Amino acid sequence: MTNLQELRQRNLETIFHPKSVAIIGTNKVKGTVPHDILDNILKADFDGIVYPVSPKETSIKGIKAYKYVVDVPDNIDLAILVFPSSVCHMALEQCGQKGIKSVIIISAGFKEVGEAGLQREKQLVEIARKYDMSLIGPNCLGVINTAPDVKLNASFAREMPETGNIGFLSQSGALCTAVLDYAQAKHIGFSKFISFGNNADINEIDILYYLMNDDKTKVILMYLEEISDGKALISVAQQVIEKSGKPILVIKAGRTAEGALAAASHTGSLAGADEVCDAAFE
Amino acid sequence: MTNLQELRQRNLETIFHPKSVAIIGTNKVKGTVPHDILDNILKADFDGIVYPVSPKETSIKGIKAYKYVVDVPDNIDLAILVFPSSVCHMALEQCGQKGIKSVIIISAGFKEVGEAGLQREKQLVEIARKYDMSLIGPNCLGVINTAPDVKLNASFAREMPETGNIGFLSQSGALCTAVLDYAQAKHIGFSKFISFGNNADINEIDILYYLMNDDKTKVILMYLEEISDGKALISVAQQVIEKSGKPILVIKAGRTAEGALAAASHTGSLAGADEVCDAAFE
Repeated sequence: MTNLQELRQRNLETIFHPKSVAIIGTNKVKGTVPHDILDNILKADFDGIVYPVSPKETSIKGIKAYKYVVDVPDNIDLAILVFPSSVCHMALEQCGQKGIKSVIIISAGFKEVGEAGLQREKQLVEIARKYDMSLIGPNCLGVINTAPDVKLNASFAREMPETGNIGFLSQSGALCTAVLDYAQAKHIGFSKFISFGNNADINEIDILYYLMNDDKTKVILMYLEEISDGKALISVAQQVIEKSGKPILVIKAGRTAEGALAAASHTGSLAGADEVCDAAFE
Repeated sequence: MTNLQELRQRNLETIFHPKSVAIIGTNKVKGTVPHDILDNILKADFDGIVYPVSPKETSIKGIKAYKYVVDVPDNIDLAILVFPSSVCHMALEQCGQKGIKSVIIISAGFKEVGEAGLQREKQLVEIARKYDMSLIGPNCLGVINTAPDVKLNASFAREMPETGNIGFLSQSGALCTAVLDYAQAKHIGFSKFISFGNNADINEIDILYYLMNDDKTKVILMYLEEISDGKALISVAQQVIEKSGKPILVIKAGRTAEGALAAASHTGSLAGADEVCDAAFE
């Protein structure tokens, strides 16, 4: 395991077990993502401390807001960025200065919108490398940890899912929403839920490795649209199955590397959201 | 108007329009008054900043908690005490040291429980005099201001009532609850809602005077169990009617001073909670 991979494992641990979270770019406008992320963390009764960061507001939802993350007088374990993509790099730079190592970038407007977005995304990764930070996203729904001593819903999914033993990771935010709705209706619970979007930094291999060692997770369910490193993914998947005995279900959408993945998964079939859910939860 | 009465008017203005509120003695136990007061302020989407103060917790409901009110790094306009009666005097002393002028004491266990309680209540008033503080309570439900730019539900009433033009004050917490339930069912709104309990400091005369000058209040509804000063009450009530033209409805329960009050009220009849509501809102 490289130093960078080890760093990501440490920072993933913090992403799932933060004592303090800053929501950078949140606001008072109900129904918008920057507001709803804060609202969801509060509604889920997060066991740590939330610091809203907003250039415009002195308080949001009754909680003191800070203009910049560097103004927060306490340590921050996890930052969640919900600023427009054009200013995310400035906020991320401040996260680095503040000593924050774990960052979830919810904002869209990066690789998925073309060349200009790709350049913005590369800039984020450069800042992350400079400060030994690890990033989830950008362009993702966020992260959920249902453990009763954490209760972190750092996502804009409407409701915290029930506690269970399924670790779920997905590149597609839309699929995440579909899976959460399905699971809620059927009372299916999750241990960890990770929407990792454009996987500019932390990718499916890092998360899979993390979930292998996570004793709250007994089954791993992945939805992938592209593979960062097919060989490495198969290698980690084999480790997971051999060392932990945890079954892995991988759904691969799109054209590339389907064959490779099929080997590492119990089902490698391409299927619609409903069929994926049906198959997975059976 | 005496200096003390002027002080109470200034401090009442802060009670209804605080920029920052400390909930002293709150906790994480859902369904208890110390928890529900904090929860109600947050649910009503208070426009200012809430600081939970709890000797045991580092955070409550995702918000940073401070051990003592003197530890809060910012100014506090309003303190709400929900500690057991035996330690309220220590918390109130700290409020004085912190420069807080307006305090709502929700806690029961004072005059209403006999001589020992009466002594504790006198001690609170002495501390208030020492620091130029004004107190609402003890042994009360709390205070509500429905104004859209404030949205303060500093009470353990289940729901924030709708915005309206009725100013309501009551010594009886039980009647407050009945009135709020009735009003909710009939979509009747309030401007200010004040449960003042044992009226150890701020009394019905202070509140009546305040509501006379409050342009959000068009009708005043009072429920009294005892009269602090019958002559003064009639004098203020006459001022209210003559100067502001606001109708006052007074309901007096119990034995004393009924006749005096009847003169100052549109209805002085003794009636059960439902009849009171029916009559008042008609």
